[in-house]
Amino acid sequence: MDPLSQLAARAQERGGVRLYRKNVEKALTALRSTEDFWSFVDRADLPVPAAAAIVEVLREDGYLAVEEDRLRWTPAGLTWLETQNVPPYTSHLCPACEGRGIPFTADKDLYREFLRVSAGRPPAIQDFDQGSVTPETTVSRVLFLEQNGDLWGKDILVLGAEDDLTGLAIALTRKARRVLVLDIDARLVEFDNRAFRELGIDNAEARVFDLRNPLPDELLGAFDVFVSDPPETLASFRAFIGRGIAALREEGAVGYFGLTLRDASVYKWREFQRLLTGEFGVVITDILQNFNHYMNWDYHPYTRAAQIAPVAAPPRDIWYRSAWYRIEVLPGFVRWNEPIDDDVFYLDEEGTTT
Amino acid sequence: MDPLSQLAARAQERGGVRLYRKNVEKALTALRSTEDFWSFVDRADLPVPAAAAIVEVLREDGYLAVEEDRLRWTPAGLTWLETQNVPPYTSHLCPACEGRGIPFTADKDLYREFLRVSAGRPPAIQDFDQGSVTPETTVSRVLFLEQNGDLWGKDILVLGAEDDLTGLAIALTRKARRVLVLDIDARLVEFDNRAFRELGIDNAEARVFDLRNPLPDELLGAFDVFVSDPPETLASFRAFIGRGIAALREEGAVGYFGLTLRDASVYKWREFQRLLTGEFGVVITDILQNFNHYMNWDYHPYTRAAQIAPVAAPPRDIWYRSAWYRIEVLPGFVRWNEPIDDDVFYLDEEGTTT
Repeated sequence: MDPLSQLAARAQERGGVRLYRKNVEKALTALRSTEDFWSFVDRADLPVPAAAAIVEVLREDGYLAVEEDRLRWTPAGLTWLETQNVPPYTSHLCPACEGRGIPFTADKDLYREFLRVSAGRPPAIQDFDQGSVTPETTVSRVLFLEQNGDLWGKDILVLGAEDDLTGLAIALTRKARRVLVLDIDARLVEFDNRAFRELGIDNAEARVFDLRNPLPDELLGAFDVFVSDPPETLASFRAFIGRGIAALREEGAVGYFGLTLRDASVYKWREFQRLLTGEFGVVITDILQNFNHYMNWDYHPYTRAAQIAPVAAPPRDIWYRSAWYRIEVLPGFVRWNEPIDDDVFYLDEEGTTT
Repeated sequence: MDPLSQLAARAQERGGVRLYRKNVEKALTALRSTEDFWSFVDRADLPVPAAAAIVEVLREDGYLAVEEDRLRWTPAGLTWLETQNVPPYTSHLCPACEGRGIPFTADKDLYREFLRVSAGRPPAIQDFDQGSVTPETTVSRVLFLEQNGDLWGKDILVLGAEDDLTGLAIALTRKARRVLVLDIDARLVEFDNRAFRELGIDNAEARVFDLRNPLPDELLGAFDVFVSDPPETLASFRAFIGRGIAALREEGAVGYFGLTLRDASVYKWREFQRLLTGEFGVVITDILQNFNHYMNWDYHPYTRAAQIAPVAAPPRDIWYRSAWYRIEVLPGFVRWNEPIDDDVFYLDEEGTTT
């Protein structure tokens, strides 16, 4: 077995997340480009336990050292690295649109109003796996919906992801026909409803709802579009995305959601994709990597990610990103709406940020 | 049934492509924004027979007229349209990167050299379903590979899509370890090989190959990356993508290819996605809509698309775009490499551009 495959096997045993040679190669590319653990996780596109395990194995071999919260290659490590043919880290991301293909400045009025209205938003809390995306992300989501014809005149359901205030941003456009936000967090529901009242937006409403429960009948088949951001467990995916699909009116209706590789592996992605195209009967039309940029959350020190990390310092910069999916339901799509009674709702062996 | 669903049913009967209300809504959004038939097809994101059938039905109803190769709403049509709550056409595409998230100017040297070397390229011909993407597209593809760690030091196979000169552009970077181009068109193979010789690029090679035949054993499991651009029939998809996967060395290896909605429907996309995530055992990591922009081809007047179109004028501007897929093979992936003996190779009922 070649050295990188061996390293993958050892890190897999230690971290409990399946790894192959290419994962380690990408991790080494990342480690060549940054001394910051959290930037490393970001660029390696791996679940935190896998990234931490790779660092551990490299330390064990004397190739990497942790000094003052920085990851540093040792002289032996640098010599070894030279022999491994690891690609240099390269980023060609467009500065104008942060790589999304849609600049958030395309609707400056919306961007400004969202910044103003979202000031004073409730901080992300650990109980509900919260972590807000940047305002630039939220606005870009709305512009993406608009560009795809999924905003104007539409009935839109936002499911359990209102820590991003996407429902609020959609309502601010005054272009949707109806906006309904369901979130478990009463603070967010109150925040939204107050904003709707103060701004005189009367076609938008937020309600407290726990997505482990089935949607009420009146919401089934009542929407053109749903938007969500599920925790990356299979149970949560069903609860958020299955119910999102169940809320859609007819074929051609669409769903949007984020999925990350920080709290899930490509294996789980494939499971989700099979569920979508198979059982649920939908087609995937878009997967945009790193569309969603998450702001750091105050409760970071209390997460499993922080405990697993080989450094004590919290993230300095954005490190948690997710892909943005768009799906379209086809004739015969399935409205899954069963109750969920599952301990593994927010977290499984790959997830660590809750 | 509401008016747009009725229109969908009538257009489906006429065009032979399955349609639902949302397709017609998007088509009307497009028809509100352009009088050019080919721009309409582009913005409607529909196979040409479906788009042409919608125009036909609207003409039948007296809502749309074709005047001097332009589609014009009649007064009755405009009045009717006002009552249908059709979203206005909106494009927020980033001008800096043409919406790809990666500006082709990120490597100006590569862009300039590609423009210089590709001058005098063989024109696209109908026999092999050719149609070249813009130089900006080809360069963006290469930068996308590079950014994902899929270029530097990699063995790369380009499968039957060299009318785009993607293999040539990859070779020009001098960053891949090996580049092998397989294409059925001897003109392109000669063009590439001459360029490789003249530029002293000795790790790149092009060979004439008909992908209906199985890949030779020496190529199976020999590459880190494949790049392709299959015609959108199931037989072609297997031939191009199935063999691309068969050529990959190990789990974590990746494939790139274009898929369009101009010559295929979302139904066929779902079939492809099930094949990928199911039988072939891969995960889809990226789907970037409208990444690939195709230059118009000289043989346009001789295509079924031109015959179906309600206008005689050829396309004036870019109208044919495709999405850019990235897939990653996971442990246990399947190396499909059977011979294909199928009449439906380049064209089926949804495809018209050959």
